[in-house]
Amino acid sequence: MDKLTKYQECVKTLLTNYASDDVSDNDIEVQLILDTERNHYQCMNVGWQGFNRIYPCVMHFDIKDGKIWLQQNLTDRNPAEELVDLLQKSLNHPSPTLPDVLGRGQNFKFPPFIRGDKGGSIRLMQEV
Amino acid sequence: MDKLTKYQECVKTLLTNYASDDVSDNDIEVQLILDTERNHYQCMNVGWQGFNRIYPCVMHFDIKDGKIWLQQNLTDRNPAEELVDLLQKSLNHPSPTLPDVLGRGQNFKFPPFIRGDKGGSIRLMQEV
Repeated sequence: MDKLTKYQECVKTLLTNYASDDVSDNDIEVQLILDTERNHYQCMNVGWQGFNRIYPCVMHFDIKDGKIWLQQNLTDRNPAEELVDLLQKSLNHPSPTLPDVLGRGQNFKFPPFIRGDKGGSIRLMQEV
Repeated sequence: MDKLTKYQECVKTLLTNYASDDVSDNDIEVQLILDTERNHYQCMNVGWQGFNRIYPCVMHFDIKDGKIWLQQNLTDRNPAEELVDLLQKSLNHPSPTLPDVLGRGQNFKFPPFIRGDKGGSIRLMQEV
């Protein structure tokens, strides 16, 4: 299994685990949206509470340029750490660390999302 | 080609056309997220304007129970009508209409999103 496939499997496993833990509600659907062709991976909540539309993307990863990019995390979990745990179990890399694995911006200091000085679109949930 | 495959092709064509028309910005990525296994289809804008996070789902369709469901539309276009145009060209159905094609709620009166009286999760952008 090549690196990309392992990254895809780990991201899908993490989101699938998260979705299965998500609190169920008859009016709110937990949607896994997994596009392995374009490498976008989401977990959405879609539904209604009374007359209020519920429509957050709860967690969103992309894979590009050989890195995993965390685009959105509305949970109180730490998907970056969970991802590294999964990757350590699946990769031959002796001990992948977050900077090895995750796309990251430059000079980021403040969670949750910081833009790099160079105007790149890289962001990471937290400094590691 | 069966009906589901035609629905999938039409939804993907519509979103791909929309994404190609979307205004480009170096800091905002137009993401197509097309999951034909779970039948969720999105066009997202992902990026930054200055220090403001830009992260809307611009358009979102699901296919379930033999219908196409419009979950989100932040454009000034009418994706329901565009979808029917595409379907009329591809389906053997002599003239599919919106109620034939789209999942819809009961007693909906007000655009853009109205919940059916029976508590179903069906919604449609506009009465037709």
